[in-house]
Amino acid sequence: MNERYICVNGEMIQANSLCISASDLAIQRGYGIFDFLVTVNGKPIFLEDHIHRFYSSAKSMHLPVLLSQSALIDAIEQLMQKNNLPNSGIRITLTGGDSPDGYSIGNPNLIISQSPFNYQDQVFEKGLKLITHEHQRQLPFIKTIDYLKAIYLQPTIKSAGADDVLYFFNGVVTECPRANFFMVTEQNEVLTPKDNILHGVTRKKILELNGYQIKASDISIQMLATAKEAFISSSTKNILPVISIGNKLLGDGKPGPITRNLYQQLIQLKEISF
Amino acid sequence: MNERYICVNGEMIQANSLCISASDLAIQRGYGIFDFLVTVNGKPIFLEDHIHRFYSSAKSMHLPVLLSQSALIDAIEQLMQKNNLPNSGIRITLTGGDSPDGYSIGNPNLIISQSPFNYQDQVFEKGLKLITHEHQRQLPFIKTIDYLKAIYLQPTIKSAGADDVLYFFNGVVTECPRANFFMVTEQNEVLTPKDNILHGVTRKKILELNGYQIKASDISIQMLATAKEAFISSSTKNILPVISIGNKLLGDGKPGPITRNLYQQLIQLKEISF
Repeated sequence: MNERYICVNGEMIQANSLCISASDLAIQRGYGIFDFLVTVNGKPIFLEDHIHRFYSSAKSMHLPVLLSQSALIDAIEQLMQKNNLPNSGIRITLTGGDSPDGYSIGNPNLIISQSPFNYQDQVFEKGLKLITHEHQRQLPFIKTIDYLKAIYLQPTIKSAGADDVLYFFNGVVTECPRANFFMVTEQNEVLTPKDNILHGVTRKKILELNGYQIKASDISIQMLATAKEAFISSSTKNILPVISIGNKLLGDGKPGPITRNLYQQLIQLKEISF
Repeated sequence: MNERYICVNGEMIQANSLCISASDLAIQRGYGIFDFLVTVNGKPIFLEDHIHRFYSSAKSMHLPVLLSQSALIDAIEQLMQKNNLPNSGIRITLTGGDSPDGYSIGNPNLIISQSPFNYQDQVFEKGLKLITHEHQRQLPFIKTIDYLKAIYLQPTIKSAGADDVLYFFNGVVTECPRANFFMVTEQNEVLTPKDNILHGVTRKKILELNGYQIKASDISIQMLATAKEAFISSSTKNILPVISIGNKLLGDGKPGPITRNLYQQLIQLKEISF
């Protein structure tokens, strides 16, 4: 197997030679941001949206980015050429950098890494079981590296026989740790939480799909019981049907027609073929 | 200058040769815990309390520790001998480890590092200015590496001319990002928040000091306005007087007599001499 390349602060190096100082603020204080996008047949999907969000996250967290937006895009293209992985996930990480006092921001490390990734159509039919948990992510609009609660909850999710957790706070549904949430109302409206969430790129694209009233709106925890269908969305998951939330089965426990239709529209938009 | 040593997964290596894989869950997902203790004249202060909390944090976060408690204490002693730094800070960090999928826990990395540290008596007289901010730390009882909000708020703290931030949530005061909080009531009671905080080792020792009614109790944000004195506590700060909170000066803006008395008791207990 050829060793993969990784881009660190603008330099292409072999992935296995990368190492991060233990005094980096990511390790010392969990301080960093990232973004993640998928390439299909050598084409980065929704690249500009991800780049835009990455720079927006960096700015919000007071982290300077060594490369300009166009230089970052160039680096991604170079990395893709060097690695020759047409179907992949690309992660752009920006850490707090080496900190002289273990608390203040240093020179952030900018790491672009690529790994094999393929969409799997068959996951769709299986659907997902969710449990709910009261939690509000801190700085929800910013794509930080903070997944502390999500990973902490893994044993709870597993012991409930579930696939993922849906957060709510003060009675209002927000999101899953790595995906946005949508539900279909009895009136066939498609709703997705509007506040205190990460603005997912896939969520944004779904809000622009056709054929239904799709809108951002508060969803109370009680409304979940009335959902005809529900699904989650992310760059790696596309649209995945939710078949149960807690003990409540949604509809007949199979992916519903609206979820299915939106999924087809989304994979056409992304030019994914199975 | 001699290069310092660091203990990584039980091995003593030169500190500058340490590097952490970018796929460690600390960098990928901000997942890790730590503890921090001070040595004075070659003696670790409240070592057992810190070790106990470290293992408790690790267990809560589902992170196995490679070394037993006695082996960890041995490693700390070895490190102190090798580095010959009688006055120091010792940080024990446990990361989520290399994760195969960037999400699940791998083999945690256990890193013990030592750096020069000396208590500074003169900081006491200056006192601290705090601002308040509504925030509840996630998993507050566990000493995780999550200081995202604290570092994010640094520019806000600086622009207010303050030294640190005091968190409150739902009207109840909790703690500073790296220190516990105490206030003296009009009845000369010394109160420290009881819930949703990190249980600081120094806080615990202060609760056992003599001469005053010192107790853990809810402190509402309104009660701050009535404080005759206030102070914060931590392993590195000992006791530091708070002279103002927001725009409100406490007392005459100088360290008060009860704060001063408790400080003297604490440094005697820790056998610190200036």
